[in-house]
Amino acid sequence: MIDSEILQRLAATIEARKGTDAASSYVARLLAGPEDSLLKKIGEEATEAVLAAKGGDRLALVNELADLWFHSLIVLSRYGLGPNDVLFELRRREGISGIDEKAARTGDQRAESRKG
Amino acid sequence: MIDSEILQRLAATIEARKGTDAASSYVARLLAGPEDSLLKKIGEEATEAVLAAKGGDRLALVNELADLWFHSLIVLSRYGLGPNDVLFELRRREGISGIDEKAARTGDQRAESRKG
Amino acid sequence: MIDSEILQRLAATIEARKGTDAASSYVARLLAGPEDSLLKKIGEEATEAVLAAKGGDRLALVNELADLWFHSLIVLSRYGLGPNDVLFELRRREGISGIDEKAARTGDQRAESRKG
Amino acid sequence: MIDSEILQRLAATIEARKGTDAASSYVARLLAGPEDSLLKKIGEEATEAVLAAKGGDRLALVNELADLWFHSLIVLSRYGLGPNDVLFELRRREGISGIDEKAARTGDQRAESRKG
Repeated sequence: MIDSEILQRLAATIEARKGTDAASSYVARLLAGPEDSLLKKIGEEATEAVLAAKGGDRLALVNELADLWFHSLIVLSRYGLGPNDVLFELRRREGISGIDEKAARTGDQRAESRKG
Repeated sequence: MIDSEILQRLAATIEARKGTDAASSYVARLLAGPEDSLLKKIGEEATEAVLAAKGGDRLALVNELADLWFHSLIVLSRYGLGPNDVLFELRRREGISGIDEKAARTGDQRAESRKG
Repeated sequence: MIDSEILQRLAATIEARKGTDAASSYVARLLAGPEDSLLKKIGEEATEAVLAAKGGDRLALVNELADLWFHSLIVLSRYGLGPNDVLFELRRREGISGIDEKAARTGDQRAESRKG
Repeated sequence: MIDSEILQRLAATIEARKGTDAASSYVARLLAGPEDSLLKKIGEEATEAVLAAKGGDRLALVNELADLWFHSLIVLSRYGLGPNDVLFELRRREGISGIDEKAARTGDQRAESRKG
């Protein structure tokens, strides 16, 4: 089970970057720098993933989603959270009524709010 | 190790939705519907995660990142990929020169290209 | 000169929606509703414009950029601003050193900050 | 009427950059470089505008929307279009049934498609 370790291990390494010299690493810089500099990476990587998918470039898609998930881990760390918070939420939704539950509920809510 | 199972299990459930009646579930609809309808969800969920973080709402941040990762899994499935493709890539980068390697390399490349 | 009027006229109409019943119009709802509901429209419309361009659909590109600019006007209005604030800034940049000035400067700054 | 000129003038200047040495200017680089490099700027600037608004920084909001509109003009130029295509579309919508028409229609369509 590959992912049992890699997300946890990355999160631990990111945590270890906290408080280290920002000049020493890209992660330390994102953790210590302006909040917006980190958050806009999420928008950038998401757009790049979308472009890779739309262009049919599967290798680029994997690379961009890896970037997106990796920066998600940095964001989580910055706000005192970790990958398990996200994974627990995914499991919780699955436990309640299957993976379509939250998505469907969100979709309906949005539909309602748009009809307002 | 929670994530050893949940991402794989979600991916398996998403795969099982392929070819099922699009009206029957949100996931089936995204898999069978227009490519753009699925891809724009990535942009939407990324923006919502950014807004949650910027607003300091940690619970919303977790929810939006769960949405973002979940829709990433649907995108991967649509293009014949799965979570392990992303996780392997993250592990590969870690193996080469630590988690900062790819990010740093990408950053440098971009800096170069912008200086053009 | 078509745009001499349309952006101003749209801005005036948006202003007139302020304080009106949110149920009465889409614009009134975005002005009076949660800040995030309006802001995430910017992310959505941007992603849709990117998808339209990448797909080579010029008509969709025009439609999505119209959506993006229109929602930009609503955002400006919500924060007590208007299209002239953006247009003056564009003219100011042009006046200083041509249209490439700000973009180039921004690019250089980013390159520098990434090299950190 | 400030905007009667500035958008047209910027568009003309962008057109004049076509075919010039990509090393000579930021705009020439975006016009001649990889399509994705230009398109991802739209995602980046949109995210930055959202962050500026959410942070209550009105000056930054104006700057980021200027960036977003400016890069929209470059995208339009790359695809053989111009600001008037967007402005005509905005005027067309206004002419049909007021500024809420298209937005409302889009909202309803989305609501319907989500309810699927």
